[in-house]
Amino acid sequence: MFEKGYVDGGYVRVPGEELFSFIVRVLLKLGVPEEHAKIVADNLLMADLRGIESHGVQRLKRYVDGILSGGININPRIEILREGPSYALIDGDEGLGQVVGQRAMSLAIEKAKDSGIGVVAVRNSNHYGIAGYYALMAAREGMIGISMTNSRPLVAPTGGVERFLGTNPIALAAPTKDKPFLLDMATSVVPIGKLEVYRRKNKPIPEGWAIDAGGNLTRDVEAVFNEGALLPLGGLGELFGGHKGYGLSLMVDILSGILSGGTWSRHVKNTNERKSEVDHFFMAINIEAFTPLEEFKERMTKMIDEIKSSKKHPDFERIWIHGEKGFLTQETRLKIGIPIYKKVLKELDEIADKIGVDRIGGV
Amino acid sequence: MFEKGYVDGGYVRVPGEELFSFIVRVLLKLGVPEEHAKIVADNLLMADLRGIESHGVQRLKRYVDGILSGGININPRIEILREGPSYALIDGDEGLGQVVGQRAMSLAIEKAKDSGIGVVAVRNSNHYGIAGYYALMAAREGMIGISMTNSRPLVAPTGGVERFLGTNPIALAAPTKDKPFLLDMATSVVPIGKLEVYRRKNKPIPEGWAIDAGGNLTRDVEAVFNEGALLPLGGLGELFGGHKGYGLSLMVDILSGILSGGTWSRHVKNTNERKSEVDHFFMAINIEAFTPLEEFKERMTKMIDEIKSSKKHPDFERIWIHGEKGFLTQETRLKIGIPIYKKVLKELDEIADKIGVDRIGGV
Repeated sequence: MFEKGYVDGGYVRVPGEELFSFIVRVLLKLGVPEEHAKIVADNLLMADLRGIESHGVQRLKRYVDGILSGGININPRIEILREGPSYALIDGDEGLGQVVGQRAMSLAIEKAKDSGIGVVAVRNSNHYGIAGYYALMAAREGMIGISMTNSRPLVAPTGGVERFLGTNPIALAAPTKDKPFLLDMATSVVPIGKLEVYRRKNKPIPEGWAIDAGGNLTRDVEAVFNEGALLPLGGLGELFGGHKGYGLSLMVDILSGILSGGTWSRHVKNTNERKSEVDHFFMAINIEAFTPLEEFKERMTKMIDEIKSSKKHPDFERIWIHGEKGFLTQETRLKIGIPIYKKVLKELDEIADKIGVDRIGGV
Repeated sequence: MFEKGYVDGGYVRVPGEELFSFIVRVLLKLGVPEEHAKIVADNLLMADLRGIESHGVQRLKRYVDGILSGGININPRIEILREGPSYALIDGDEGLGQVVGQRAMSLAIEKAKDSGIGVVAVRNSNHYGIAGYYALMAAREGMIGISMTNSRPLVAPTGGVERFLGTNPIALAAPTKDKPFLLDMATSVVPIGKLEVYRRKNKPIPEGWAIDAGGNLTRDVEAVFNEGALLPLGGLGELFGGHKGYGLSLMVDILSGILSGGTWSRHVKNTNERKSEVDHFFMAINIEAFTPLEEFKERMTKMIDEIKSSKKHPDFERIWIHGEKGFLTQETRLKIGIPIYKKVLKELDEIADKIGVDRIGGV
């Protein structure tokens, strides 16, 4: 069944192209246009290749549910509501987040090619996968790419206990002489996906990631899922800068939802609900407008080399640069396949059976 | 001597206008043009009024030293090297950071008025005071303002022990129906000014702010000043997201120094050294280009009201919004004056005596 894969522990290794074609055939069967299905597949596959499984193929179920429930519009009329040479406002018409996002970032890049800068704010979209996907689109064109999105409320503001903020990620990519620099971070201490991993393994989480419903730091992952909340980057209170993560999360809400005429995380819903109301913000900076691209890349590479050759901390194996781990994982996974947990595989098989397409592996 | 001030404990309260005029006369005496002196005074005064003393009048000594040593050019030829309708690249010619910064953000605002977006990258500047000053300039014009700067190396990258990163602040301001939202944060757990406060009080710092030269978490502030380093937001290692603060700091270096053809924090020097090589990044987003300004403000205020009325954590007094504490402090200090530590006052008196101008209070 898995010609290029093998079974190992709790997971199975699946070649990237098989995951890709599986996602495409599921979405096609649901009526998603082929071009759109390929964009979603490319985005989910990148997450799985780079080791961000929470945003990979295991998201597919939620997208399928969203399409079946009508929460996701598979034939959206993505509309440019306003635009100038350096900006645009887009209404995503509740389309698949990846389709809306890819369109919006392409427009930002186009505008930056012509005018140096492209800023695109988007409202009425859906979960768009990994933020870094869009930032990398710009880096491939010799630009700095920035991508942000609001997301459903999971994080308590400093001084509060309610889930108010999204994990609202920020991504920035920039070209170097080698692989691009890629910062792609949730503005919470950890993304919710990390808690899901601990839950699956039935392990206590480190103290400092999340609080229970009463606001107490907790190691009990169920207490977090049961009316608790994640903490903003910097942790509980202000002592270690929790108000900064809280502020960065609001920054994302302001640039994506408030600027676009959309909403803010408090009112963002799950992808499988009607009108999830996710909003995005994209920006492309045409480096050549400011400085010769080759010199920019040289400076990037010099800075990175300097960091990596600076004195190492005795407790750490090495100094990593942002994006580096993902590219290494990608190299490996392109060769030996992507580990898919059996539980996830079972879920994907169920999707295949339910809608009537071949399972992964072609059966 | 202090008509509107009073002596209380270790400090003296000085009316804002006296601080302002003192800074202006010191700079004028050193040959700084009046318009420039007033910009610097306004910037330092705002920091003192808002309770960010580390960036207030106590910085003046370093600026004076920089001017006297020739590290700061008091008659800079601030040059627009490249520009388009939505961007510009500026060389600050080693001018006072506030003068260069004010000019650059004004240009970003002007461009945003005409084209919706203004992005200005700056190289060859100096310490520009509080980042929020420039972000607020845009908010006053009905825009979202973003301001960043690299700064001398004080922070260790995740996995390293050397001071490599600056505390590289990020500021974002946005108008509301009331006072603007103002996020203004160092990308380290705490700015260096916080450690200076603990040093002055001879108190141990909280564990988690900084490391000693060997990379150990330390509570000994002297160990930090003696070849130790601050930690990036998120703390030591990756467990609580230290790599995120590290990445945000690099983001600031990329957008300010690398994009502008300047340098990165590792090579940024103190203001009083020859060629401190500080670089900035400014951005103004004309809200009206995207959405009616009044509706934007209403959404901002609604979001803030919702946060502030969400369920409070039992251990915290209230839920603050970014900028709010500063505005409250400003209100108070406008009425009863700014507390200036006697040690700082003595230093200011010494400056006055050295260069031959009246001390604060007019004597």
